Amino acid sequence: MTTSDRTHLAAPPLPPGRSSLVVTGFMGTGKTEAGRRAARLLGRPFVDLDAVIERRTGRSIAEVFQQEGEDAFRSLERTAVADAARLSGAVIATGGGAPLDRTSFARLAEDAVVAVLTCEEPELLRRLRHDRDRPLLTHDPPGRITLLAERADAFAAAGGSLDTTALDPEQAATALVERFRSTTSAATEVRIAAGSSTVVVGPGTVAELGFELRRAVPEATAAAVVMDEAVEDTAGASVEEALRRAGMPVLARAVVPAGEGAKRVETTAGLWNTFLACGLDPTGVVVAVGGGTLTDVAGFAAATYLRGVALANVPTTLLAMVDASLGGKTGIDHGGRKNVVGAFHDPVLTVADTTLLGPLPIRLIREGLAEVVKAAVIASPLLFELLEGDARRVLADPALLAWVVEQAVRIKAAYVSADPRDRHLRHSLNLGHTFAHAIEAATAYATAHGEAVAIGLVAAARLGAAVGVTDPGMAARLEALLVRLGLPVTVPDGVDPAALLEAMTADKKRRSGRAMFVIPAPGGVDLVEDPSPDEVLRALRPEAAT
Amino acid sequence: MTTSDRTHLAAPPLPPGRSSLVVTGFMGTGKTEAGRRAARLLGRPFVDLDAVIERRTGRSIAEVFQQEGEDAFRSLERTAVADAARLSGAVIATGGGAPLDRTSFARLAEDAVVAVLTCEEPELLRRLRHDRDRPLLTHDPPGRITLLAERADAFAAAGGSLDTTALDPEQAATALVERFRSTTSAATEVRIAAGSSTVVVGPGTVAELGFELRRAVPEATAAAVVMDEAVEDTAGASVEEALRRAGMPVLARAVVPAGEGAKRVETTAGLWNTFLACGLDPTGVVVAVGGGTLTDVAGFAAATYLRGVALANVPTTLLAMVDASLGGKTGIDHGGRKNVVGAFHDPVLTVADTTLLGPLPIRLIREGLAEVVKAAVIASPLLFELLEGDARRVLADPALLAWVVEQAVRIKAAYVSADPRDRHLRHSLNLGHTFAHAIEAATAYATAHGEAVAIGLVAAARLGAAVGVTDPGMAARLEALLVRLGLPVTVPDGVDPAALLEAMTADKKRRSGRAMFVIPAPGGVDLVEDPSPDEVLRALRPEAAT
Repeated sequence: MTTSDRTHLAAPPLPPGRSSLVVTGFMGTGKTEAGRRAARLLGRPFVDLDAVIERRTGRSIAEVFQQEGEDAFRSLERTAVADAARLSGAVIATGGGAPLDRTSFARLAEDAVVAVLTCEEPELLRRLRHDRDRPLLTHDPPGRITLLAERADAFAAAGGSLDTTALDPEQAATALVERFRSTTSAATEVRIAAGSSTVVVGPGTVAELGFELRRAVPEATAAAVVMDEAVEDTAGASVEEALRRAGMPVLARAVVPAGEGAKRVETTAGLWNTFLACGLDPTGVVVAVGGGTLTDVAGFAAATYLRGVALANVPTTLLAMVDASLGGKTGIDHGGRKNVVGAFHDPVLTVADTTLLGPLPIRLIREGLAEVVKAAVIASPLLFELLEGDARRVLADPALLAWVVEQAVRIKAAYVSADPRDRHLRHSLNLGHTFAHAIEAATAYATAHGEAVAIGLVAAARLGAAVGVTDPGMAARLEALLVRLGLPVTVPDGVDPAALLEAMTADKKRRSGRAMFVIPAPGGVDLVEDPSPDEVLRALRPEAAT
Repeated sequence: MTTSDRTHLAAPPLPPGRSSLVVTGFMGTGKTEAGRRAARLLGRPFVDLDAVIERRTGRSIAEVFQQEGEDAFRSLERTAVADAARLSGAVIATGGGAPLDRTSFARLAEDAVVAVLTCEEPELLRRLRHDRDRPLLTHDPPGRITLLAERADAFAAAGGSLDTTALDPEQAATALVERFRSTTSAATEVRIAAGSSTVVVGPGTVAELGFELRRAVPEATAAAVVMDEAVEDTAGASVEEALRRAGMPVLARAVVPAGEGAKRVETTAGLWNTFLACGLDPTGVVVAVGGGTLTDVAGFAAATYLRGVALANVPTTLLAMVDASLGGKTGIDHGGRKNVVGAFHDPVLTVADTTLLGPLPIRLIREGLAEVVKAAVIASPLLFELLEGDARRVLADPALLAWVVEQAVRIKAAYVSADPRDRHLRHSLNLGHTFAHAIEAATAYATAHGEAVAIGLVAAARLGAAVGVTDPGMAARLEALLVRLGLPVTVPDGVDPAALLEAMTADKKRRSGRAMFVIPAPGGVDLVEDPSPDEVLRALRPEAAT
């Protein structure tokens, strides 16, 4: 294939989330230790950028310096700092030279609280005396650290200082936490802009739904609540209570059967009837409570009732929180085809209450994580590495899972804001999905969407490597991560890869003349048109490649 | 009621249509005669602005000068010139002083061809010698016209001159027509911008549909044609032929039963099935051929198939040409309520072929004219006066009817462009419709929409006069015009006005707290909130007012 068949789609800037805490300072000031402990106290993920570079290169910082020189190291550091700037709400320790590159550091500092750890020179000498891994100190005269004065200006410009001379790591961490708490809101919820709509993420946010709705749609007079029967007594009841507390009349409550079978025109017509019967008018709001199936069908009913009434989504599954409930795609299945009927209808508000994830079957969490992994691959290398490092903890720790939701929502929101109607950049979000849709159809939807996406992600990485774009190690890393998350990575038994190939390409070709695949590429994704059938086939069954 | 219950919505500027021919020049140069004959040769309406002022004041120009002075006359002239500037494709003769007000004249001249008739002074004196109705000449010395030199600059600036000294009126008219033909396209079709879509109006334009579609949607690969069974062998066949000639594959042809009964979810689902079965993909276009009912339901199917595919409308009734097929409102009836389900979906293209109106039953032409009258009332006083003067000819003369369609499309397009989603200004188009919808419902839709609008327009004018906004003579003028167009103007026998009042206000009040009426107001309309029940009732049965 020629390069003209490929289009690169660079990952867009991400909207702000909660502030990160950035810990920097001269070597030996205790950034890593204090940062790690502060992260634990704050309940936030910790990222040590020197460790990131070591993991990425497979060598120690000292080795990188020795073997490739300082310039090569600074380039790696600049990339790590830029990647860290795409995270929100994390604790990030940088290397001691990071603030010297003021442009990249400023981006990291932009929405963050920056603490510059300092230490008086004698104490610093004492701390560093046994350290043989500090390449920049090897030429200093005894009893002096010449670099300290050279870097003083850059550190002073980087942020407020914290003198650690007399502090042990635990005390330094406590001081960091106090500073962070004093400059950022203690609220656990975060408000993320997604095009014209707002996503509120955080534990317990459903309780605020009514007030958030009044804020988002001041002219709203009443609501009709549409809920999945599976959440009627839990999230559904909480939503009704929250609306009542904000004085928002609930004109109707429609309970829709659980499962994909509800996504059809008869359900939609039933919802229209409910809206009509309760007198929902153009000043009313439809509140959709459930997973992606529910928000799809309730959203479509809202999009088409009176040519569109306001819609608020309360996703109750991870997949809906990070994907389905955001971005305005609504729809139903028809004539045996999924989502073939629908409309773009942006919710005015999405409330992603992460406590709703607690009681969910683990299978549903795993499914949603497939979309999170996809988001990380296309737009946040560090999020991907954090998932690799903490895969099991993400499944076990609600605070970490909530943080992951925040990151995934920010990524989805960025693409939706940049390309609301899915005309170009937003195609990036289809990574793995050309394969996934074919697998779902071939198994008559016995393979769940998230599972199919997991298989598709690995296939896409293999295809990307075959065409020389994707890092050749990516497919193996994806496989390892997805397996640890409990997701499948190979085409299900009984499904013939050749039949999948036929479904993906022949059908597309017949209809619009082109089969389009998304593959991971540095800094984003590439769109690949009409890859060779062989390449696609080998992506689906790597054993055939040998 | 207080003034705070009213909002004025001023008529917006209108988009360009075909060029007008503006004939101006000094008194006695023969503007009126030459203009009238040129209009006949061109097959365009003729407007003499002095005659407009005389009709509006009920006095001769000389009387206006004598009784109110020149300033008052100039103000009336300025208004008439501004009103004429809102027409397109007409022949307009101005008074001899019109070019002196350079601002208002420039607006008239903007999209027009301007011809300044001249005449040598001796011949002019000869022509004017028996004329006692020229107030500005009464103080001239014998054998001199002092004004001629004073106005020379303004006339020179107004446009190209045509010396009529040696021409009789027929020769002057021929010269005008030649000049007009040499500077404007001879094409009978006109292209009007309506927001993001284009409307092509004119006789025979269906033949160009395929090429117009290729121009509007260069990426289109195929079409599905949806047609009303009533036009299957006529307009439907022409559309298919036009697509074939432009090399646009027709993947499917769906024939929908005639009548409002087709506007339901079952029809929509059937169209989705057709689109699916023929493989219509995101690069396909739905072409809707029929009246408002057909374009509504086909448009809704197009709006919701694959979350919206391109739509082109070929309206085959006058009502659909001037109203239903423009502006993106699509929808179906549901649960006994009209248009309660739908979507905004702008057609990429609307082709209004006025030859399709020829074979229509006269009742359908009358119905469409009710919406034309509405458009004239809200946005074009001169169009309204032209309809009053030529009511019968509009019904009989296809060229005049086509011109009227052009004016009405420009008006609808202006409101749609200014307020695509019907949030405020576009409410102006609901003039008469609050009444009309109640009347249609009360007669179980035995009263056709256009007929109900006619009745509603008169009621709205009466309500407007009652609240002191609408010219008190407007209701009577509307009644006279609509009767001459063969439309009803009184609430049908057996319909209780009190029940209509109840339907219009009680229902609105229950749902959003306000009943909103649109009334004619100088320069546009006023929105009136919650008029007193008595005022509304008297608007519906004026006999009760005495």
